[in-house]
Amino acid sequence: MISPSATQDRYPYQNEPIWSRSEKIIARKALDAALGRELHEVIRETQKMASQIQQSSDLWDLEHYLTQRRKEIDRKYDYRYSRLTHVFGKLLHEKRLREEDLRGLREDKLKSIRSVAKFLAEDTAA
Amino acid sequence: MISPSATQDRYPYQNEPIWSRSEKIIARKALDAALGRELHEVIRETQKMASQIQQSSDLWDLEHYLTQRRKEIDRKYDYRYSRLTHVFGKLLHEKRLREEDLRGLREDKLKSIRSVAKFLAEDTAA
Repeated sequence: MISPSATQDRYPYQNEPIWSRSEKIIARKALDAALGRELHEVIRETQKMASQIQQSSDLWDLEHYLTQRRKEIDRKYDYRYSRLTHVFGKLLHEKRLREEDLRGLREDKLKSIRSVAKFLAEDTAA
Repeated sequence: MISPSATQDRYPYQNEPIWSRSEKIIARKALDAALGRELHEVIRETQKMASQIQQSSDLWDLEHYLTQRRKEIDRKYDYRYSRLTHVFGKLLHEKRLREEDLRGLREDKLKSIRSVAKFLAEDTAA
């Protein structure tokens, strides 16, 4: 469902940060870990919902839940380097990543990522 | 999801059998019972699939299963009187109904229903 290899930008646009080889490895590892944790959450919730099914509407509620989570996860875990600052900012905001998971990225990237997280926090609070 | 009351034919077309009041009651009861049994099967299968989820593809397989079953059930349980002969024939063929569940329907209707079931059996075997 999520195919990162086909979506990597080869030619960064102007003003976009260049990701070094070591940064790409760190980013990929952090993203894979966050995705793994989120999928694990969905699996647990699915099993809980399934165990509590009493009637047909509970079945279609579970179907709806799965469709929504699949679409949300597909949208969120965007492996394109041009999108990573935003993706990591969102994951920090959602507490799916901690800053230490991003240790090794250049400070200018961390600053942009923090700035996205801060914006989302303020946006949520508004 | 399935709303029988809105879909009943008020004016039968020519050549369509008229359903008497007592036949309507029998038909509704047989249909409700078959639907209940089929939904119960889907609930059990969903709980089995959920308990065996290991990875993300298993989640989306479950989503797909639920979507397919919902569409199939919506299509199959058509409460319009003009469709009942076909619906009961299909349910007999699938062994979701036995002829005794239809006891009290007029013989001409039972004959049409058996004929649909026979056609489907031959179609499956072909």
